[in-house]
Amino acid sequence: MIVVKAGGNGGTDVEAVCADVAELVRQGEQVVLVHGGSHETNLISEKLGHPPRFVTSVSGFVSRYTDRETLEIFAMVTAGRINKLLVERLQQLGVNALGLSGLDGRLLEGRRKGTLRIVENGKRKVLRGDYSGRIERVNVALLNALLMAGYVPVVAPLALSRQGEALNVDADRVAAAIGAALKAQTLVILSNVPGLLRRFPDESTLIPHIPPEKAQEHLDRYARGRMKKKLLGAIEALNEGVERVVIADGRVARPLLRALAGQGTVIR
Amino acid sequence: MIVVKAGGNGGTDVEAVCADVAELVRQGEQVVLVHGGSHETNLISEKLGHPPRFVTSVSGFVSRYTDRETLEIFAMVTAGRINKLLVERLQQLGVNALGLSGLDGRLLEGRRKGTLRIVENGKRKVLRGDYSGRIERVNVALLNALLMAGYVPVVAPLALSRQGEALNVDADRVAAAIGAALKAQTLVILSNVPGLLRRFPDESTLIPHIPPEKAQEHLDRYARGRMKKKLLGAIEALNEGVERVVIADGRVARPLLRALAGQGTVIR
Repeated sequence: MIVVKAGGNGGTDVEAVCADVAELVRQGEQVVLVHGGSHETNLISEKLGHPPRFVTSVSGFVSRYTDRETLEIFAMVTAGRINKLLVERLQQLGVNALGLSGLDGRLLEGRRKGTLRIVENGKRKVLRGDYSGRIERVNVALLNALLMAGYVPVVAPLALSRQGEALNVDADRVAAAIGAALKAQTLVILSNVPGLLRRFPDESTLIPHIPPEKAQEHLDRYARGRMKKKLLGAIEALNEGVERVVIADGRVARPLLRALAGQGTVIR
Repeated sequence: MIVVKAGGNGGTDVEAVCADVAELVRQGEQVVLVHGGSHETNLISEKLGHPPRFVTSVSGFVSRYTDRETLEIFAMVTAGRINKLLVERLQQLGVNALGLSGLDGRLLEGRRKGTLRIVENGKRKVLRGDYSGRIERVNVALLNALLMAGYVPVVAPLALSRQGEALNVDADRVAAAIGAALKAQTLVILSNVPGLLRRFPDESTLIPHIPPEKAQEHLDRYARGRMKKKLLGAIEALNEGVERVVIADGRVARPLLRALAGQGTVIR
């Protein structure tokens, strides 16, 4: 069982990822593919006259402010455009892909943040009406039933709150939560860098291996920006029974097969 | 087992349809909801700078010309926006809805038209590169597995060609094909008119009942525009084992419960 996170930042070679998924499925592997969509959501939001707004939290994290209109665009782009084009491409390669968002059959349940505490122009502010959240529960029965029936689930990063609201959730964390829920052998997180770098952005400083007990220390010392969430997801997944996490380059040929062969940052 | 087609033309009260689906599910009915999306696809296509193009076939039918860019917008709007907002609303009402497009798990397989023979400015023309099609096969095993597990499938009108291309398909015909494949008791097609009218658009001329053997004659004599496809779908569904088809008003309160009570044009 392999859970893969690919795409979202615009750098990943989606065609190459699909070809590798097809190869793994031919070899008899069970695969779940999780994708992002930030980059395309930004492009389409701009075109629709509702440009993205990024805010900095008091703890220094940069994130998208997801008002209701942004949420609806995010759902449209990720669950409609990106998800269905991936399913189409995989079907062309002979993979019986089946696309879902976290809303469908309550695949992913989460807790809504609602209120963001941000810093803007040096001032602290409270921003309400945010529709993003954190995953709390994965509908494992649904995923297992689909996998047993021979489908390859392709998952868009939305979740349902307890109140039944759609939420924008982080795709790296979605992959980690699904990997943990399925007790996957390997979780692969493809990125637009070769893995965790000791001195970002110098790619020759790739850290090839991290023992799980050193992962938090590496996160604190070396991770920047989005890499923090990838490592956070990795730590959660390992704590809950995933054997191995590989953070690897999504911009190269055969990105998934290379990651599985250990190229990238391997945490195990 | 009830299959419902709702929405697409902008007139249907989606909120009321969801409330009725929730009521039926509480009563223990199995429901499949099929939706359209033409109206919203037109609005978003305009905003994205790729306005819809409608063409008239040599046999007099008006249809959307679906080039690849239009197909991708159609997929984004129907499978992303409309489908996920319906799933969210149904989940809020306690219904475990699960949204799929026809691409997912090869739910709907179809034949691509590819070439349209049209009349433009009085001249016959051949228009290539169209991505619309006609449904040939429904993955009944997938639908039955979801229904048995307690999910309410919500289906977006896309199909996969034999070559694995995504196709835009008519949502009325999707509902008819699914109704037929599931041998549904009732197929309800909600519209922005009260049913088949003897003298369109005079709503006092509603035809309340048509025996199946007279359906083709009624189609030829009274159906105009999109009502032709609804009746064509109804005839196909009845021929393949659906007990009853109701074409009814989607703009009223309790639209689905009223249709099931026989208000509209009942064909049985």
